[in-house]
Amino acid sequence: MIRLALVGPGRWGRILVEAVQGLSEDVVFTRAVARSPAKAADWAARHGIALTDDLDAVLADPEVDAVVLATPHSQHAQQIARVAAAGKDLFCEKPVALTLAEARAALAAVEAAGIVFLPGHIRRHLPAFAEMARRVAAGELGRLLHAEGNMSSDVRVGEVYTPEMWRLAPGESPAGGLAAAGIHVIDLMIHLMGPVATLSALSARLVHEIDHDDTTTLMMRFASGATGTVGTQTATAREFRLQVFGARGWLELRGQNQLTWAPVEGPRTRLTWPAVSMERQELEAFARAIRTRTCHPIPMREVLGGIAVFEAVPAALAKASSVSVPSE
Amino acid sequence: MIRLALVGPGRWGRILVEAVQGLSEDVVFTRAVARSPAKAADWAARHGIALTDDLDAVLADPEVDAVVLATPHSQHAQQIARVAAAGKDLFCEKPVALTLAEARAALAAVEAAGIVFLPGHIRRHLPAFAEMARRVAAGELGRLLHAEGNMSSDVRVGEVYTPEMWRLAPGESPAGGLAAAGIHVIDLMIHLMGPVATLSALSARLVHEIDHDDTTTLMMRFASGATGTVGTQTATAREFRLQVFGARGWLELRGQNQLTWAPVEGPRTRLTWPAVSMERQELEAFARAIRTRTCHPIPMREVLGGIAVFEAVPAALAKASSVSVPSE
Amino acid sequence: MIRLALVGPGRWGRILVEAVQGLSEDVVFTRAVARSPAKAADWAARHGIALTDDLDAVLADPEVDAVVLATPHSQHAQQIARVAAAGKDLFCEKPVALTLAEARAALAAVEAAGIVFLPGHIRRHLPAFAEMARRVAAGELGRLLHAEGNMSSDVRVGEVYTPEMWRLAPGESPAGGLAAAGIHVIDLMIHLMGPVATLSALSARLVHEIDHDDTTTLMMRFASGATGTVGTQTATAREFRLQVFGARGWLELRGQNQLTWAPVEGPRTRLTWPAVSMERQELEAFARAIRTRTCHPIPMREVLGGIAVFEAVPAALAKASSVSVPSE
Amino acid sequence: MIRLALVGPGRWGRILVEAVQGLSEDVVFTRAVARSPAKAADWAARHGIALTDDLDAVLADPEVDAVVLATPHSQHAQQIARVAAAGKDLFCEKPVALTLAEARAALAAVEAAGIVFLPGHIRRHLPAFAEMARRVAAGELGRLLHAEGNMSSDVRVGEVYTPEMWRLAPGESPAGGLAAAGIHVIDLMIHLMGPVATLSALSARLVHEIDHDDTTTLMMRFASGATGTVGTQTATAREFRLQVFGARGWLELRGQNQLTWAPVEGPRTRLTWPAVSMERQELEAFARAIRTRTCHPIPMREVLGGIAVFEAVPAALAKASSVSVPSE
Repeated sequence: MIRLALVGPGRWGRILVEAVQGLSEDVVFTRAVARSPAKAADWAARHGIALTDDLDAVLADPEVDAVVLATPHSQHAQQIARVAAAGKDLFCEKPVALTLAEARAALAAVEAAGIVFLPGHIRRHLPAFAEMARRVAAGELGRLLHAEGNMSSDVRVGEVYTPEMWRLAPGESPAGGLAAAGIHVIDLMIHLMGPVATLSALSARLVHEIDHDDTTTLMMRFASGATGTVGTQTATAREFRLQVFGARGWLELRGQNQLTWAPVEGPRTRLTWPAVSMERQELEAFARAIRTRTCHPIPMREVLGGIAVFEAVPAALAKASSVSVPSE
Repeated sequence: MIRLALVGPGRWGRILVEAVQGLSEDVVFTRAVARSPAKAADWAARHGIALTDDLDAVLADPEVDAVVLATPHSQHAQQIARVAAAGKDLFCEKPVALTLAEARAALAAVEAAGIVFLPGHIRRHLPAFAEMARRVAAGELGRLLHAEGNMSSDVRVGEVYTPEMWRLAPGESPAGGLAAAGIHVIDLMIHLMGPVATLSALSARLVHEIDHDDTTTLMMRFASGATGTVGTQTATAREFRLQVFGARGWLELRGQNQLTWAPVEGPRTRLTWPAVSMERQELEAFARAIRTRTCHPIPMREVLGGIAVFEAVPAALAKASSVSVPSE
Repeated sequence: MIRLALVGPGRWGRILVEAVQGLSEDVVFTRAVARSPAKAADWAARHGIALTDDLDAVLADPEVDAVVLATPHSQHAQQIARVAAAGKDLFCEKPVALTLAEARAALAAVEAAGIVFLPGHIRRHLPAFAEMARRVAAGELGRLLHAEGNMSSDVRVGEVYTPEMWRLAPGESPAGGLAAAGIHVIDLMIHLMGPVATLSALSARLVHEIDHDDTTTLMMRFASGATGTVGTQTATAREFRLQVFGARGWLELRGQNQLTWAPVEGPRTRLTWPAVSMERQELEAFARAIRTRTCHPIPMREVLGGIAVFEAVPAALAKASSVSVPSE
Repeated sequence: MIRLALVGPGRWGRILVEAVQGLSEDVVFTRAVARSPAKAADWAARHGIALTDDLDAVLADPEVDAVVLATPHSQHAQQIARVAAAGKDLFCEKPVALTLAEARAALAAVEAAGIVFLPGHIRRHLPAFAEMARRVAAGELGRLLHAEGNMSSDVRVGEVYTPEMWRLAPGESPAGGLAAAGIHVIDLMIHLMGPVATLSALSARLVHEIDHDDTTTLMMRFASGATGTVGTQTATAREFRLQVFGARGWLELRGQNQLTWAPVEGPRTRLTWPAVSMERQELEAFARAIRTRTCHPIPMREVLGGIAVFEAVPAALAKASSVSVPSE
C-alpha cells in the first residue's frame, strides 16, 4: 500500500482522494496539506486523513511514500522542486508549469532527484486511449494526416467556477478552458502525432459573466506536416473527443471508453470498455510506477511539448493571422 | 411528373439519375447532354434517356421542364446564364462558381429570369439537418459559440479520381477536397451560424500521388463572434460530421441520419432517421420548388457566402499566419 | 447478365425488381407473369418488362434464364414443381411451403431437376449475418446456450395489409407475423443453432381490426439442448434483432448492418457495415449461384427445418401448455 | 444523515457500503452484523463500521436508524419479521422471500409495524427506467403487446460463485440465474405490464461445473393478454435489456442508462443518462423514503407478483409443455 500525502484538498484534490480511499488495494491517502486547514477539517476526518498546513513536515515524514500535488497551476513549478529536493515520488496535476522555462527547470530537478514523476494527464491511462495509441504506433492508420479534438464543459454548472476561485486569478488560466481541459487533448495529440511546429489561435468571451474565455480554438501544424485542430468551450455541454485521420482510415476516441475505427474499406468497428474511475486508474498507475521505479511514465519531451504549445497560445492570439472574407 | 434534362452524364450525374429513374413519382430524366455522347450511350439507353451534344436544342425543347447541371465547376457560371436565358428552372451542382464575382453574375441572371434555382447543397435536405437547423433557429442551444465539421473520403478508392479527370484539372479543385466535400460543411455552417468574417487555412499533400492536397483545414471567425473549424481529407475513410456548440448544449450531425443533442444538464438524446437516398430527396425537393414556384429554396446570400469563403482560401493559405512553437 | 422472369408483380415482387433494374450488372428482369396483367401494365412498362399471364410461355422461353417467384405462399409448392419441370433456375420467396409434406415434395422436384434453388431468406446474405455465422461456426462463442430474436413491423402503415390482400386470406399467414417476418429469425437461428426439437407458443390479436394476430411468441428447445425465443409483432415499430448467447460471450445482430460482440471479459465490439440494398444483394447472390452452379446455396435440411417449426406452431398454440401464476 | 446497520457483510453487502461510505450526504453505515465477524473485521475497520454478531443488540440500538439486509434469500422472511418487530425501517435485498406464503407473512408484518420497507429492486431507481415507466403509464406506446428481457452474466468470473457459497446451497437459487438476475427483469415487467397470469419455462445446465443452471427462459402471458419472455444466462457475457412493444412503437432499456424509443413512424430517439452508482441511488432513495415516511415506495402487490412468478417456475419446468418439431 503506497501512502500518499495530498497537497491542495480543493475540489479536484478531493475527487482524487474519494476515487481511491477505502476502495484501492494499491494506494491510500494518509496526510493532506492545506493553506487553511479549517476549511478541509470535516472532509479530512471523514476520510481518515491527518491534516496540516506544514508541507515541510509532510515531506520529512518517513510514513509518507509519495506526494500528490493538486494546487494552483502557478505554484506547481516551485512545489515540484521542493518535493524533488525531499526525494519523494511525485504526482502533479497538469499543467506542470505555465511556461516552458519553468517546466524545464522543474523537470530538471525531478530528473536530478531520480524520483518517479507522473503529471496528471489522466486520459493517458484510459484503456481506450492505450488501444488508440497502440494502433497508431503500429502503423494501422498509415501516414497520419490530421487530428481533431475537443474538450468542453460548463464551468457555470455546480458552482465549479466562482469569481474567487484561484482558477480565475490572473495568470492561472490564460486562454479560457485551455489549462483545465484543452491541454488534455493537446497532450494526447502530441503523443500520437509528435511535436507541434506552428500554431494559430482564436479565443473569445461570448457568454461568460466571469472573466474567462468561453470559446478557444487552435489550428496547428505538427513537425511531421500533419495538421490538427483543438476546440475547448467552457460554457456548453460536456464533450471529449479526439479523432485522428490517416491514409488507411480514422480512429475516434469518444468520452472515456469508446473507440471507433473506420477503415478506408470494410465495416467500421466500435470498441467499448467498461466504465471505470479514471482517477483511480491514474493513481494506481502512479503506484505501479513507484513499485517498478519507472521514473518517467510519460516521456519528458512530451510533457514539455504540451507546455510549449500552451505557452505559445497568447502570442498566436495576439498575432493578426487571418484574411477577411468579403460579405456577399 | 417533372421532366429533367441532365447536362454532364459523368460519375455524379449518373448517380443523380439512378437515384430517381423509375423510382420517383415526382421527377424523371428524359434528356441528357454530353460533350462526347458515345461514352454515355449505353448507360443512357438503359435508363430510357435521349442523348445529345446540343445544349441549345435541349434548352429550346418544350418537353423539358427543368435542367440539372452536373458539369465541371468552372463551366457552371456561364451555363447557369444560358439556362436562365432560356427560362428553364435549374438545379446546379455545387460550387455554383469558383469566384464570388462569377457567382454574383450568375445569380443575378437567375434572379432576372425568375427561374427556380437550387444549388446542389445536398445535405440541406436531410431530415436530420432540417431538425438541427430548426433547433438552432429556435434558440434551443442558446448563444452559439463554436462549430466543428469534417467531410472526408478517399479519392483513391473505386478509381474515383484519375489524373485525366476534370476535377484534377488546374483551377477546378483548389485546396484539396474543399470544392468536392468541405464546401458542404461550410454551406451548412453558414446556414446555422451566419456569414464568415475571417479565415485562416492550412493545406498539404502528404500521401497523394496525384496533384491534389489530401489534408485541408480552415479556422474561421463568424461575423457573430463565434468560431469554427472545417477539416477535409481526401485520403482517409469516409466521414461527415458537423457539431455546433451553444451556451445551452451542443448538437452533432453525424453521417446522413443521426443527430445527437447534449444539453448542459440531463440525458443526451440521439435521433436516428431511416436511411434514404439523399440524391432522390434533393431532386424531389427541386420538383417541389418548381411546383410551388419557390425560386430560391436556399437564400442567395448563403450561396454567395459559401463562395466567398471558398474564394478566400488561397489567400489564407498564402498568408504566413501562425506562430512557431519551440521544440522542447 | 442473368435474365429474370418475375412471377407475381405485387408489392414485394416490385421491390425486388426496383432493387436491381438498371442498377445491377449481374441481373435484369425482362419478363413478368401476373394473374391480372392490366394492374401491373404501367409499372412494367416503366421498367422495360414484358408482361403476360401465361407462365408456361415464360417457362418455355429460352431468353429467360431464371424465374423469381413472389406469389402467395400457398401457391409456392406447385409453382416450384412447374419451374423445376421446365428446368429453369429458381428463386422462391419464403416460406417455400406451408407444410413440411409440401416442402419435401417441392424440394425433391428441385433436386431431381438439378436446378439452382434459392429460397428468399434474404437476411442470410447480409455481410453482418455472414460474419455472425462465421464466428459461431468457428467456436468463438463457445458452447451455445440460448438465442433471442424479434422481427416486427406495423402492417397498418403504408396500406401494406388491406383486408383484400392475399396475405390475410385463410391459410396464407397462420400465427400472425410468423410467415412474413418471424420466419426470418427462425431461419437464421436454425443456421446458427441447428434444428429445433420442441416448441411452445403464444399468439393473440390485441389491437388489429383485420383478422391477423398482432402478437406471436415462440419458446423453443434446440436439439442441442440450447433454448431460444422468437417474438414477432405486427402492430408496432419496425424491429429486427437476433442475439446468440454462448459460454464465451454473446453476439447481437441488429437491423441489417450492425453486429455487436460482448465477450465475457474485455471491451465490447460493434461492427457496422455500409447500408446496402438487401434485395439487390440477394438477387446478385442468386446470379452468382447460377454462374457457379451452386444448386443449394442454403442447405435443404435447413429450409425444411424452418418449415417444420412453422407447421408445428398451430399445434403448440392449441396445446394448453403453461401453469397459472396466482394473483397476489 | 441516516445511520444504517448492514446485516450480511458478504460480497453484495460490501458493494452497498462502498457505494456510499464517505461519499453520500444522505446515508452512512455505522454498524454491521455478521455470523463470523472475524472474516469481515479488516474490511469493517477500513470503513469505520462497528461489527457484531448480535442482531438483537443492533435492533435495540437507538443510534441505528434503519437496517439493510443482504443475507441469504432463505433468511429474509424471518429477518424481516424481526426487524419489523423492532420498528426499524428496512431495506431488504431481493427476492424478499422464496415463496408467496412467506412473502405475504413478511409483508404483513412490515405493514403492521408501519415501517418503511424497500426491497432491493435496484433498477427501479434508474432514471432511464423511471422515464420508461413514465412513458408507458402515459400511454405513449399505446396498447402494450409484448415485452422481452434478458439479464445475464458470468458467475464463473471473478470467483463470484464458488461451490461453498450460500447462493449455490439447495433452495437458495432454484432455476439458475432467476433469483439473482432474472428476477430484476420480472420485477420491472410487472411494473410496466401488470401481473402475470400464466407461465411456461425451460431451464438447463449446459456448461457449468457447479450445480447451477446456466440457461433459463420464461414465456409468460400477462393478465392483460400481452405476452413476454425473460431469458437469464449465468455463463455468458453481461447483459441487461428490457424491451416493451406497444401499438404505437417500442421502448428498449439497455444497460443502466440507455433508453431507445422507436415510434411506428418518424425518427428513433436514444436517450443516454450519465453513468451513476445504482447502489448509491438505491440507498439514497431509501433515505428519502425514510425522511418522507413513504412506507411502500414499491407497491406491495408488485413485490408479491414477482414472488408469485418466481415460485411458479419449478412447476412450469416440471410440466411437459411443448410440442415436438419433426426432424426434416
